[in-house]
Amino acid sequence: MRVFAAERDWEQFHSPKNLVMALTGEVGELNEIFQWMGEAESRYAATNPDTAQNVRDELADVLLYLVRLSSVLGVDLNAAVTDKLARNHEKYPVETSRGNRRKYCEK
Amino acid sequence: MRVFAAERDWEQFHSPKNLVMALTGEVGELNEIFQWMGEAESRYAATNPDTAQNVRDELADVLLYLVRLSSVLGVDLNAAVTDKLARNHEKYPVETSRGNRRKYCEK
Amino acid sequence: MRVFAAERDWEQFHSPKNLVMALTGEVGELNEIFQWMGEAESRYAATNPDTAQNVRDELADVLLYLVRLSSVLGVDLNAAVTDKLARNHEKYPVETSRGNRRKYCEK
Amino acid sequence: MRVFAAERDWEQFHSPKNLVMALTGEVGELNEIFQWMGEAESRYAATNPDTAQNVRDELADVLLYLVRLSSVLGVDLNAAVTDKLARNHEKYPVETSRGNRRKYCEK
Repeated sequence: MRVFAAERDWEQFHSPKNLVMALTGEVGELNEIFQWMGEAESRYAATNPDTAQNVRDELADVLLYLVRLSSVLGVDLNAAVTDKLARNHEKYPVETSRGNRRKYCEK
Repeated sequence: MRVFAAERDWEQFHSPKNLVMALTGEVGELNEIFQWMGEAESRYAATNPDTAQNVRDELADVLLYLVRLSSVLGVDLNAAVTDKLARNHEKYPVETSRGNRRKYCEK
Repeated sequence: MRVFAAERDWEQFHSPKNLVMALTGEVGELNEIFQWMGEAESRYAATNPDTAQNVRDELADVLLYLVRLSSVLGVDLNAAVTDKLARNHEKYPVETSRGNRRKYCEK
Repeated sequence: MRVFAAERDWEQFHSPKNLVMALTGEVGELNEIFQWMGEAESRYAATNPDTAQNVRDELADVLLYLVRLSSVLGVDLNAAVTDKLARNHEKYPVETSRGNRRKYCEK
């Protein structure tokens, strides 16, 4: 991503603020794919010939902007995730969280 | 993520449709961090003591939901990204894309 | 809104770019309310004591930022809506659009 | 909006959950317009011939989905806004809020 942007002289556009908006745009496109689908139908979206390629592409776009955003911010995304997962395990103990949507929502 | 959700009996909530909304919520929180910052200031958001932990946590949350979403959809996120990157190289040749924001926007 | 912002010297923060991000943050909060609800349940969200006030507040926040954004952009929102509605009537004729989700999606 | 949806038999798709996602999609498109613009440039987006119509259309789309969403939820959007504005006046007193971005952010 860094080389890709540098070769095209796009670093000037890639401020974190701008990249958050670009990420948001891609997440908006994900919403457009799923907006009129029921939940059950949504489970097959990546194998439905009408939506499969589109779903894969939007997921990829979200990841690409997320990685680029982390890079320009100087954030080690792997470390951030490992750290967050450890805290999630403490915050949502198995015993009190089981089947409990409200608990989950309150985060 | 899969084990984490299964242990808590949260698979019932993790339809792709629901996870897209959860991903959107986290991206909304990223926007809230950056909304009143200038572009220049945004470049230091992950080292500013007031926002650093918050930035790291929101990036992690976005990645966690993105990975979980890809998993329930059965999408190989690595393959999707490799494929998209190859097409991006074709779509934005270095010669015609250099410093060209409009070209970039049109995608 | 204009007076409210001027009295607090907040006009400096209210560029359209920033307000789009603030609007996005509020829409993210709307997503968080609805993310784990089923579609049927979502129809009662504004009468459910647990979510009613929250739903009303987030809808208000979205409208407030949308109106402020239109104002700083100099856009007459009423005219923009009237114009768009007229085009939607042409784009989705009753005969060919009835019950047709795909047609709707393609917009 | 209600008649428009009823005539096309689209009420079946217009659950609040789905409409929140549709609203999100439109807000995503707003982000795409502004993502590579600087803040100063963003102030002219609605008079720039390249973006003016697009800006007006996206603002209209956001309002249309917001009104439809409020309608299916049974929320009186005017009352919700009046109520929220009154609370905002209490929450952000002029004296302590002036020029204070942090205060504003903490909401």
